Amino acid sequence: MTTPLRLGIAGLGTVGTGVVKIVRQKANLLAERAGRPVVITAVSARSRDKDRGINIRDYAWEDDPVALATRDDVDVFVELMGGSDGPAKAATEAAIAAGKDVVTANKALLAHHGHSLALAAENAGHVIRFEAAVAGGIPVIKALTEGLAGNDITRVMGVMNGTCNYILTRMQSAGLPYDEVFEEANQLGFLEADPNLDVGGIDAGHKLSLLAAIAFGTQVDFDAVELEGIGRITIEDINQAADMGFRIKLLGVAQMTARGLEQRMSPCLVPDTSPLGQLEGGTNMCVLEGDAVEQIVLRGPGAGEGPTASAVMGDVMDIARGIRIPTFGQPAAGLSKAKPAKAATPAPYYLRMALEDKPGALAKIAAVLGDAGVSIDRMRQYQHDEASAPVLIVTHKSTRDALDTALAAMARLDVMHTPPVALRIETV
Amino acid sequence: MTTPLRLGIAGLGTVGTGVVKIVRQKANLLAERAGRPVVITAVSARSRDKDRGINIRDYAWEDDPVALATRDDVDVFVELMGGSDGPAKAATEAAIAAGKDVVTANKALLAHHGHSLALAAENAGHVIRFEAAVAGGIPVIKALTEGLAGNDITRVMGVMNGTCNYILTRMQSAGLPYDEVFEEANQLGFLEADPNLDVGGIDAGHKLSLLAAIAFGTQVDFDAVELEGIGRITIEDINQAADMGFRIKLLGVAQMTARGLEQRMSPCLVPDTSPLGQLEGGTNMCVLEGDAVEQIVLRGPGAGEGPTASAVMGDVMDIARGIRIPTFGQPAAGLSKAKPAKAATPAPYYLRMALEDKPGALAKIAAVLGDAGVSIDRMRQYQHDEASAPVLIVTHKSTRDALDTALAAMARLDVMHTPPVALRIETV
Repeated sequence: MTTPLRLGIAGLGTVGTGVVKIVRQKANLLAERAGRPVVITAVSARSRDKDRGINIRDYAWEDDPVALATRDDVDVFVELMGGSDGPAKAATEAAIAAGKDVVTANKALLAHHGHSLALAAENAGHVIRFEAAVAGGIPVIKALTEGLAGNDITRVMGVMNGTCNYILTRMQSAGLPYDEVFEEANQLGFLEADPNLDVGGIDAGHKLSLLAAIAFGTQVDFDAVELEGIGRITIEDINQAADMGFRIKLLGVAQMTARGLEQRMSPCLVPDTSPLGQLEGGTNMCVLEGDAVEQIVLRGPGAGEGPTASAVMGDVMDIARGIRIPTFGQPAAGLSKAKPAKAATPAPYYLRMALEDKPGALAKIAAVLGDAGVSIDRMRQYQHDEASAPVLIVTHKSTRDALDTALAAMARLDVMHTPPVALRIETV
Repeated sequence: MTTPLRLGIAGLGTVGTGVVKIVRQKANLLAERAGRPVVITAVSARSRDKDRGINIRDYAWEDDPVALATRDDVDVFVELMGGSDGPAKAATEAAIAAGKDVVTANKALLAHHGHSLALAAENAGHVIRFEAAVAGGIPVIKALTEGLAGNDITRVMGVMNGTCNYILTRMQSAGLPYDEVFEEANQLGFLEADPNLDVGGIDAGHKLSLLAAIAFGTQVDFDAVELEGIGRITIEDINQAADMGFRIKLLGVAQMTARGLEQRMSPCLVPDTSPLGQLEGGTNMCVLEGDAVEQIVLRGPGAGEGPTASAVMGDVMDIARGIRIPTFGQPAAGLSKAKPAKAATPAPYYLRMALEDKPGALAKIAAVLGDAGVSIDRMRQYQHDEASAPVLIVTHKSTRDALDTALAAMARLDVMHTPPVALRIETV
């Protein structure tokens, strides 16, 4: 097979520029590995004249990504524009209708429209690949879809937003409050134009919903992801969790239970000695658990020109080599819609509270927890000079319902200085 | 495509039994994912009657694996017997000659005969897959061959023998000497029949040579792997390395340099805060570095029924799905024979020595190092009651040649109580 594979690239930001560089600079290597040349025939972006450090004058230019996606000299439409709707969606749909394969880094597009796009592509006999959409340079989609294809997947977990992990680890290492580190991350250009995509957990939630669809053979269902951002995490939580041997991570967890599919993206405590606990800065990590393989941990850069372009090129090379697997690992037409689990799998919880400095305050808290059926594993009261006493509790495994009952009862007590903070401790 | 993929399995030890269980228990899942049924038609093993907890009476039986490999009702020959030559080689060759694809977990076979087997398979239009041969359940072959196909790989590293990592971490955690932990590992059944395959680094060296061939597009060349086992690592080294912030690992490193291909499997120091340094017990880890992706770390179980069967099934499922990639990622006919690098890339070294308690002893050592061009980063002399003083030195980056010159000169000094131990510190 020596027919070249012809790419049309829409979007020449950081990732698109990285892809162009790889295709230009590694033509021989790619051809040797794929058994055929990989070439770019056409590109599209907001500006043709912006200096990106690459020469795009060799390629046909289209102002309109839909026009690019439907060109006769394009075999694979490479969508690197981003956005869940608008031009990215229009051009991807047009590419599929025109009989192209699609490679995309667009987690929002697939989290919202992945199922219908996959159906359309598979009806047309074409593939959509999206390794770059989840965890940057880490080949986690491939590991899950192909490497672990002999497993019933039992759980997937991930720290998949580098900005949030940067903020949380920087708060701890520098002893700085959330707002200050948030502003620092903003100055460094780490935040999306809408920062809530990062710190609200939405971006990471998109990624989790894609992993869950593959893992459990279900239709991608981002709306069912229980989302909680990192905005309410304080430096006190970070320090006191550390004191109990934990780190706080914005952790995605998906697991199929008898009660339905759980999908959560929320701040959790993990043991500081675990691979997840040891993950510093902007690095991403995915944990894949299957009945045969037990546990696989994948770690790598979650963003950036090179790593993300590497993931895009992994998909391109698969197509060049003739690898054609359904978008979510099995035909989309056969994917069921999972029932979302109403209640999370029981877990230990971390509770931080400030109690009025009154006799019997701690006893009242303990009684309320006991009445709700929540048992205490460890408790610490810290030295204090003020009228309120900082208290930390780590519970034994508890249902979220029981915990919420206890939290509601606590709120009615006369000893709470401020409402308690409750964070799930994920067993990893 | 609903034609079943028919497996013939040779070898029903731990891994073979695991594969049979998965194929029997997950028939529906595998068929959904592959788009076609995956079935076993025939098996071969040393004993037909041994109780393995699986029913093999549904399958045709062959005493001779060569006969199994050439049966008309077998599409894929699954070789799980082991051994670099003998029946495994004969049956694999017979399978290729009979037009079968091959899935194997046999690192020794491929390390010694991988190039000629790959040539034969590719000439016949068939594939050999070997995910299970390297790092057990970790899909590292897939990550390197496919996921990172857009990268020039710059270095691959790995802790790929769980027994050695168990011994080294157990020595540290229990404070026990090598011989005692070796015996413990033996009692636990962790060691190969020939323990030198484990502790001599041979098994891990086989794996490294396979990764290197894929990473650098070269013919697999196990004979060029610089091998050193863990037998000379003492509890003192482990403790004193820990004191300097390091862990000792049996670490494989392959990198292509201007001086040729480096392949080393040897005890190295790595920072205790790095993912490699934090790896405890029998778990494996592979570190893949590429010019685009920077660094990917993969961690998981390196052995055992489930994890290894998971890797075998990943390969089987790829074949069932029509994924057909050359054995080493590009056509074997085009793979060059790499020139082995004569000298390793410069690195810092750890030196442990016992000096006679004489005035000026340390000065003589420092002078010898300086004369050889080896500069000292850190030095520690420990309190001592005996006639000899334990001294640790961490050097700056040095060539192995310069270090060897210094070590030879040290041996001629009158202040050395015992010959110095020198271990490479790998930058990770």
